[in-house]
Amino acid sequence: MKFDLVVTDNSSSARAGLMQTDHGTIETPIFMPVGTAGTVKAVHQRELKDDIEAQIILGNTYHLYLRPGLDTIQKAGGLHKFNGWEHPILTDSGGYQVYSLSDIRKIKEEGATFQSHIDGSKHLFTPENVMDIQRVIGADIIMAFDECTPYPCEYTYARKSMEMTHRWLKRCCDRFDSTEGLYGYNQTLFPIVQGSTFKDLRKQSAETIASFEREGNAIGGLSVGEPAPEMYEMTELVCNILPKAKPRYLMGVGTPMNILECIALGVDMFDCVMPTRNARNGMLFTQHGIINIKNEKWKNDFSPIDETSDLYADQVYTKAYLRHLLQSKEILGAQIATLHNLHFYLWLVKEARKHIIQGDFIQWKNKMVVDMGKRL
Amino acid sequence: MKFDLVVTDNSSSARAGLMQTDHGTIETPIFMPVGTAGTVKAVHQRELKDDIEAQIILGNTYHLYLRPGLDTIQKAGGLHKFNGWEHPILTDSGGYQVYSLSDIRKIKEEGATFQSHIDGSKHLFTPENVMDIQRVIGADIIMAFDECTPYPCEYTYARKSMEMTHRWLKRCCDRFDSTEGLYGYNQTLFPIVQGSTFKDLRKQSAETIASFEREGNAIGGLSVGEPAPEMYEMTELVCNILPKAKPRYLMGVGTPMNILECIALGVDMFDCVMPTRNARNGMLFTQHGIINIKNEKWKNDFSPIDETSDLYADQVYTKAYLRHLLQSKEILGAQIATLHNLHFYLWLVKEARKHIIQGDFIQWKNKMVVDMGKRL
Ligand SMILES: [Zn+2]
Ligand SMILES: [Zn+2]
Repeated sequence: MKFDLVVTDNSSSARAGLMQTDHGTIETPIFMPVGTAGTVKAVHQRELKDDIEAQIILGNTYHLYLRPGLDTIQKAGGLHKFNGWEHPILTDSGGYQVYSLSDIRKIKEEGATFQSHIDGSKHLFTPENVMDIQRVIGADIIMAFDECTPYPCEYTYARKSMEMTHRWLKRCCDRFDSTEGLYGYNQTLFPIVQGSTFKDLRKQSAETIASFEREGNAIGGLSVGEPAPEMYEMTELVCNILPKAKPRYLMGVGTPMNILECIALGVDMFDCVMPTRNARNGMLFTQHGIINIKNEKWKNDFSPIDETSDLYADQVYTKAYLRHLLQSKEILGAQIATLHNLHFYLWLVKEARKHIIQGDFIQWKNKMVVDMGKRL
Repeated sequence: MKFDLVVTDNSSSARAGLMQTDHGTIETPIFMPVGTAGTVKAVHQRELKDDIEAQIILGNTYHLYLRPGLDTIQKAGGLHKFNGWEHPILTDSGGYQVYSLSDIRKIKEEGATFQSHIDGSKHLFTPENVMDIQRVIGADIIMAFDECTPYPCEYTYARKSMEMTHRWLKRCCDRFDSTEGLYGYNQTLFPIVQGSTFKDLRKQSAETIASFEREGNAIGGLSVGEPAPEMYEMTELVCNILPKAKPRYLMGVGTPMNILECIALGVDMFDCVMPTRNARNGMLFTQHGIINIKNEKWKNDFSPIDETSDLYADQVYTKAYLRHLLQSKEILGAQIATLHNLHFYLWLVKEARKHIIQGDFIQWKNKMVVDMGKRL
């Protein structure tokens, strides 16, 4: 992996960069659609590339490990071959799903034991085997195994958890550095800053994580329920410590407003289930505000879904039609709304990059965060 | 509507024709994907046109009348405008859904009263208002309001029902002929032959229906549970009576084998939920047989879904991946399988037409019905 800063904004910490992986180049700042079980829900790979213009997608280690399972993925030749997405992929470490989805989990120094939410079978994730699993899945960027603390979180628990995450990181790096990719291309490992919403812990964690000198760094444990100002405060604090020359990935964030604010703080990479999950519930994000398409007010609105968009689905389908589809629980409703939201998120980061390069990012951002927050 | 026979097969009753509507030309024999609630489930309009190469789709009067409702469809300017499908549409009369889906229904000479399966509200369909409803929906081809008898059916019931269907047809024609399309293009009304599996009733019904001299004719009440030989016998008998110069539409049929056999008997138009509904359950139709993609045997089969197909989804995605998606109940699984099946059905009728024109239809058909019936 190679990262080059193209432009650094004068009025903020925003940056435009270029990441090069063996599966292609990524222009940052970037939003990465979430492809939980090897599929971005309701979206064809062709649409992801040509309509949404995604440059990198996420896979979830927890889901892929349970289904289809490592045997199938390895026999396929890795996740890219398995799902037909030839461009970069990032996998999370599975930790977040173990804590949030699995039925019973126990976290010890060794690792986390959990029961599958699918069939109740018992499993153990350790820093070592999570590296091995992500070698098999074969993502371009893989994540360290960490504990993501909930919000709110006791100081003592947050500190102990962070310290264990740091010890786990050492084990992740040792394992990762003593193994090789299985499919002939490079993988890189990103460590994750934790520390809940405590400034001293976040500072300590950012310094520790930076000291591992990996090719990129991630910020975890945010967007888990804390107020936005706290999220921004922690992000700013951490970004000021993490090395400038390496990409910074803020995990699980967030709304379009969150993303622009965090770009201003120096974040380069984002992922979030919000554009996909909320799409299926009828929430559409646009330049001019948020549409709840299930509202009665759109019933006979035959204007295009988004007149400002160049996405074919935004032009061909009307608000009234999309409302009808979602009201009728038709699959095409989920397809159209997902396409729209992901296309909008990718447009947004591309536009942010353009304004960083032009030098008017902050003015543009300040206007956008007001507009996009309106309820239409 | 204008129908021209291009070629009539020498060794069978198969025909290749051209139907012209104000929304475009249809090459027959044709299969019409079912777009129940104004959407072919899991398929974008762009995919329907460019990938599946559908030439005409179906809408269901019962569903559209209940949701989004006539007010919305009329304000949109008709169904074509509402759903963004600019090519020909056919609507059924709603009768079949009234009998099969609604909670309580009562059939009288006046019409059928029923309760909505969505909200329990009470409604009355009569031959007259079903014509008016289909005027509002604005399909190019609309269907007479009939009673579709179940299988098996008592002779006396079948006869009385058929006679009422004929009286209803008179009322449909009177209403249709005394009204006009609402959106500036032509609509045409097809009557429906009934008579269950009784030869004398089918003969009598076909003669009665033909005597109305509409621009096309339909065969209803088949593929409702009767053995295939009975379906073929009734279809043959009816096709021999219905005028040669007009298109014949066999409603609700069927498997790929059924379709080829009925093309040989002189049918020009088909519709069926099978390719779409079965796709969502993992049943794929191919040239070489039927695949139940959920079977364990496909778990690690990384060959393309269909190597003989030119559909991008058949080439880009593997059997193992599609199996994983359907096992995981991922929306993309329904999308891919539906694309495949509809693309296959449209390929099949196009291929049939080619062989009718080439003059080797029967040889080709006889081989295909054996191959396609195999379990892979
Ligand atoms: Zn859009
Ligand atoms: Zn196919």
